[in-house]
Amino acid sequence: MNLRIPGPTPVPQEVLSALSGPMINHRGPEFAAIQNKVTEGLKKVFGTKNDMIILTSSGTGGLEAAMANTLSPGERVVVISIGEFGERLIKIAKAYGADVVPVSFPYGSAADPDKVRQVLKSETKVNTVYLTHNETSTGVTNDLRSLAKVIKGEFNKTIVVDGVSSISSLPLPVDEWEIDIAISGSQKGWMTPPGLAMLSVSPRAWETIAKAKCPRFYFDLKMAKESADKGETPWTPAISIFYGLNTGLDLLFKEGLGSVYERHASIGAHTRQAVKAMGLQLFADERYASNTVTAIKIPEGVDWKAFNTTMRKEHGVVLGGGQGAIAGKIFRIGHLGFFTQKEIDDCLAAVKTVMGTMGGLKAPARSA
Amino acid sequence: MNLRIPGPTPVPQEVLSALSGPMINHRGPEFAAIQNKVTEGLKKVFGTKNDMIILTSSGTGGLEAAMANTLSPGERVVVISIGEFGERLIKIAKAYGADVVPVSFPYGSAADPDKVRQVLKSETKVNTVYLTHNETSTGVTNDLRSLAKVIKGEFNKTIVVDGVSSISSLPLPVDEWEIDIAISGSQKGWMTPPGLAMLSVSPRAWETIAKAKCPRFYFDLKMAKESADKGETPWTPAISIFYGLNTGLDLLFKEGLGSVYERHASIGAHTRQAVKAMGLQLFADERYASNTVTAIKIPEGVDWKAFNTTMRKEHGVVLGGGQGAIAGKIFRIGHLGFFTQKEIDDCLAAVKTVMGTMGGLKAPARSA
Repeated sequence: MNLRIPGPTPVPQEVLSALSGPMINHRGPEFAAIQNKVTEGLKKVFGTKNDMIILTSSGTGGLEAAMANTLSPGERVVVISIGEFGERLIKIAKAYGADVVPVSFPYGSAADPDKVRQVLKSETKVNTVYLTHNETSTGVTNDLRSLAKVIKGEFNKTIVVDGVSSISSLPLPVDEWEIDIAISGSQKGWMTPPGLAMLSVSPRAWETIAKAKCPRFYFDLKMAKESADKGETPWTPAISIFYGLNTGLDLLFKEGLGSVYERHASIGAHTRQAVKAMGLQLFADERYASNTVTAIKIPEGVDWKAFNTTMRKEHGVVLGGGQGAIAGKIFRIGHLGFFTQKEIDDCLAAVKTVMGTMGGLKAPARSA
Repeated sequence: MNLRIPGPTPVPQEVLSALSGPMINHRGPEFAAIQNKVTEGLKKVFGTKNDMIILTSSGTGGLEAAMANTLSPGERVVVISIGEFGERLIKIAKAYGADVVPVSFPYGSAADPDKVRQVLKSETKVNTVYLTHNETSTGVTNDLRSLAKVIKGEFNKTIVVDGVSSISSLPLPVDEWEIDIAISGSQKGWMTPPGLAMLSVSPRAWETIAKAKCPRFYFDLKMAKESADKGETPWTPAISIFYGLNTGLDLLFKEGLGSVYERHASIGAHTRQAVKAMGLQLFADERYASNTVTAIKIPEGVDWKAFNTTMRKEHGVVLGGGQGAIAGKIFRIGHLGFFTQKEIDDCLAAVKTVMGTMGGLKAPARSA
């Protein structure tokens, strides 16, 4: 199967093999050595000297950890949303009793720094702003550098960024952009199976955490930090996924982060060009189109389920569907982490064939 | 290394190999098939027709899920504790703002049903009672059948049981004993690496959950149940560990649950007999000694760290230490899940040699 969803991504054989390592004591020196090495690797990719916390959970667990540790019940917070994962941040904040000021932008567009500035001008009591870097549901990458300049540079807020599907595929230099908490997940650009969430935590974030009163235990970042300093985790970690992430990091550094970013930028541009050339329309504002996932409008008259089933059964391609409000209206091609140009091209060729058969391609493309 | 800690346990090669399966769409038919099969297998081992929820987290995440979903802030609850994992239940309940009535028994002893009855007589407002089945920190197995008869049979409370280190190694027939929520973790008797927690949830538990007001999102059991009914999980699951658990369950059924329980009972008795024969003292009240882990007092004059280092470096045996209040006072031999008689005997022989050298064995044993 050609797995072209935006995570979990295909995993290289070296990483799959590493998963099969034998069990070790998670409170012994072997585990400490692996955790310390993985932590150093993560810091390098995150571009940070901040603390690094690794949790056994999906990326959403990492988002919840970031929120439960920085929020107090009733606290007013700003959450910027441009899609389903922004909405998820809002839902988590509300689940924890926050007084959420949602700053939402239409699906397919990026967050506008000017609008964020306007909101923060009047929201003087807000301490923390939460936002998504790369919105996997719509294929949009926010201009985080500009947004952070407003949020931190002009208003000096604590910034928490969902970088689950960006970090390690797209540049997110945490220290340079002054991001207080950045979160990622092992099943994205890290070329590792799901099971671990990773968070960088700045000194400013620790100050916010010290004041936050929402309940947390499993996701308590302070306990996690105290354990990490001893080369441990507070609770039994997913040791096998640590083995995988360790190898995934080796592969990233072997390729070189610069090459990894370039490879994603180039495949993103290639995918968008090919999609447009066949007569389909991109869902995302192209100025902010993501280089890890491309969202494509499903043409009038084409049924997503029928299209998806044919793609899967006749071409062995597994695509991402639309989530939430845009279910059935778009489909998504993931191109992050471990992929070859051929896999993407095979996927695009299959899309062209099936869409053509289903009458989803405009005349110009069909005649091309 | 002879890994003799009470979890993570050694994992059979078949399970380690299964971990290396390729990534699949966690919202597609292949994952649904595996989750459905694993769920059926878990229900068989738990002895229940109740709902089964699988979470990507350690066992502690499962405990937190059970608490966050059944508690409201300020709610009065009874938590029975006989060791560190009972104390952990108390800590989680307090983290979530519960008004905890701790019913604690000395480390090394089991919970006394009479004392529990006395407490419940006066605690008429309490809806839910939390307790540990097998206390890994002290090597004691509570008489859960008798305790449940009091808690449920006499007082009709919702019962939540930490069965992390018992279920699949020791009998815990959930429906027969009327346990509302039972929790286990993949890295124990399931012969699988850590990363998944499993919870059975009774209709009575769902009623309690519907009233509970503590915040939860990642661990929201209702959302997990709605997804499970579609063969999905709300958040990206640790797919590789699902592969492992699937194979671990196959191995359990191949051996037969009756044989698995017998094997644990027999190795438990054997270990205790051997430990006493060499002149060491058991930490646990022998009437309630656990068949998954044996806790042994460290004799006067023997230093845990020196003992442990020698065991590790000279004999390749990794033991469990004492946790919390009994750190440095006991050591523990894990004998659960995947083990051979020879591994246990090698471990016992090494303990005898090293304790002998360090002057930890009484004269009778030394002359034996």
